[in-house]
Amino acid sequence: MSIFAVQILGSAGALPAYNRHPTAQILQQGARLFMIDCGEGTQMRLLDFQVKKSKIDHIFISHAHGDHYFGLPGLLSTFQLMQRERPLHIFGPAALEDLVMVHIRPYLDQWSYQLHFHPIDPEKSSLLFEDKEIEVFSIPLNHRIPCTGFLFKEKEKPLNILGEKIHEHGLNFDQIRAIKEGEDIELEDGTILANKSLTKPPFRTRSYAFCSDTAYHEPILPIIKEVDLLYHEATFMEESAERAKSTFHSTASSAATIAQKAGAKKLLLGHFSAKYPSLKGLLGEARAIFPESHLAKEGSIFDIPQERIEP
Amino acid sequence: MSIFAVQILGSAGALPAYNRHPTAQILQQGARLFMIDCGEGTQMRLLDFQVKKSKIDHIFISHAHGDHYFGLPGLLSTFQLMQRERPLHIFGPAALEDLVMVHIRPYLDQWSYQLHFHPIDPEKSSLLFEDKEIEVFSIPLNHRIPCTGFLFKEKEKPLNILGEKIHEHGLNFDQIRAIKEGEDIELEDGTILANKSLTKPPFRTRSYAFCSDTAYHEPILPIIKEVDLLYHEATFMEESAERAKSTFHSTASSAATIAQKAGAKKLLLGHFSAKYPSLKGLLGEARAIFPESHLAKEGSIFDIPQERIEP
Repeated sequence: MSIFAVQILGSAGALPAYNRHPTAQILQQGARLFMIDCGEGTQMRLLDFQVKKSKIDHIFISHAHGDHYFGLPGLLSTFQLMQRERPLHIFGPAALEDLVMVHIRPYLDQWSYQLHFHPIDPEKSSLLFEDKEIEVFSIPLNHRIPCTGFLFKEKEKPLNILGEKIHEHGLNFDQIRAIKEGEDIELEDGTILANKSLTKPPFRTRSYAFCSDTAYHEPILPIIKEVDLLYHEATFMEESAERAKSTFHSTASSAATIAQKAGAKKLLLGHFSAKYPSLKGLLGEARAIFPESHLAKEGSIFDIPQERIEP
Repeated sequence: MSIFAVQILGSAGALPAYNRHPTAQILQQGARLFMIDCGEGTQMRLLDFQVKKSKIDHIFISHAHGDHYFGLPGLLSTFQLMQRERPLHIFGPAALEDLVMVHIRPYLDQWSYQLHFHPIDPEKSSLLFEDKEIEVFSIPLNHRIPCTGFLFKEKEKPLNILGEKIHEHGLNFDQIRAIKEGEDIELEDGTILANKSLTKPPFRTRSYAFCSDTAYHEPILPIIKEVDLLYHEATFMEESAERAKSTFHSTASSAATIAQKAGAKKLLLGHFSAKYPSLKGLLGEARAIFPESHLAKEGSIFDIPQERIEP
């Protein structure tokens, strides 16, 4: 089984409060970890939740407000102190590199690993990263400064060939490849083997979208359409809709409306204002519009199970 | 009663571990708070221990290694979000201002309070701050980069005049001032009142010295001589004396030797390496040399009681 799950490390808005910490998340995909935002204290959260830092090779930072990146200098220094050797890739706003490197540059002569900064164009959705298993796209958001969300999407998988059929018919590599691509096979004796008799459907692709910080912003809908799991900031309740608007944040209601209009399967609410000791009000407000709403609290894990496509 | 007490917010060395956090402390003197160092996550520790941030007007940073200042941008941003109005004074190495201001400069047009940076000369002990109650001196240490400790010292207090004597003899302001300065008084009828009959001795002055990070460094002895409470880093045990030497850190033994040679009354050990899950070994090592040694663990408070000078 391959895991695709998000763990929440921080659920607070700009001000930490009530044991809520600044934004940070870990997306586990198979054996590796992607970090999303890195607020102050993130490295301590990784220790609290026993997350293996060494499995993080890619960090995605949404924007250059401190509550989303102040944990980065400390985490990178800790990697150095632990004599990390694997290169680390950081995707974020163009301004980020200087904000981080000012703390690291004095020690570069003794730095143990390569640091690669990849500036993100905040104006258009683009492919930031891909390999054979996953693609990561930026999601332009609407905040006070340049800000993007991130869409993580597994790649389409080939058909799964039934192992016993390979031996039964003595199939060669070319035939196996053709079968995985959906073709029927003709044996040397002229027998035609229908593809369906040789394969089972692959697992369906899973997706996660992270959208913080942003005002209510419908242009993101086509990018996050039918996403399995949507994190959308919900800094305020509707009673503070005016304040949400003026600070380019969202209410729980508007986050739920985005989830509903996008056809998302599940919604995670986060980036909660310090004015709310209890989050029940926000959750209720969101569920009235989108029942599959959940609070993205510290430590909680939301996984998307692996399911076969219906044949 | 006037309080003079240190609360430990972080006891870890460069790597946080075992729920130990980067260096930060609060010295409470009367109603106000001095902050000493501000490692990553310090603002969350202030919340955990319910320390009133608004009573901090002075922050002292020992040196520009991240584990001693990475919490500063977050704390200063939080002050701004809370619309702080009182000026804030930061004493630290000359390099610190740029390292902090790079995160703040973009928002200065909307900043709610004045920030004053006071660069410290790391080469000589000097008076950094004083008012009518306290003096703060720098303590040049011996680390890989410029680094200073801090000596907080209450000022000598005048004699306490016995309230009932003022009424009994109808003393005027000039006479009261003279009595507080130790003089005898002649009344209009020629009676001489001995100073001792009019006063009780003042409270003795209290002192706290913070020394981190540093190799074993005897030149600090005259500065911290007979200090009431000495915090001295103890990153390693003697078995790692070579590593302590090469990284310009101290062992628990050498911290205790400094305390003993300085004639300190009590020693606090901190800045513990992540290699020690248990700190018993460090404590034992220090107590073998200086019995009044204690572990500076997160949350613990060490106060110096107010005592009258013996007449």
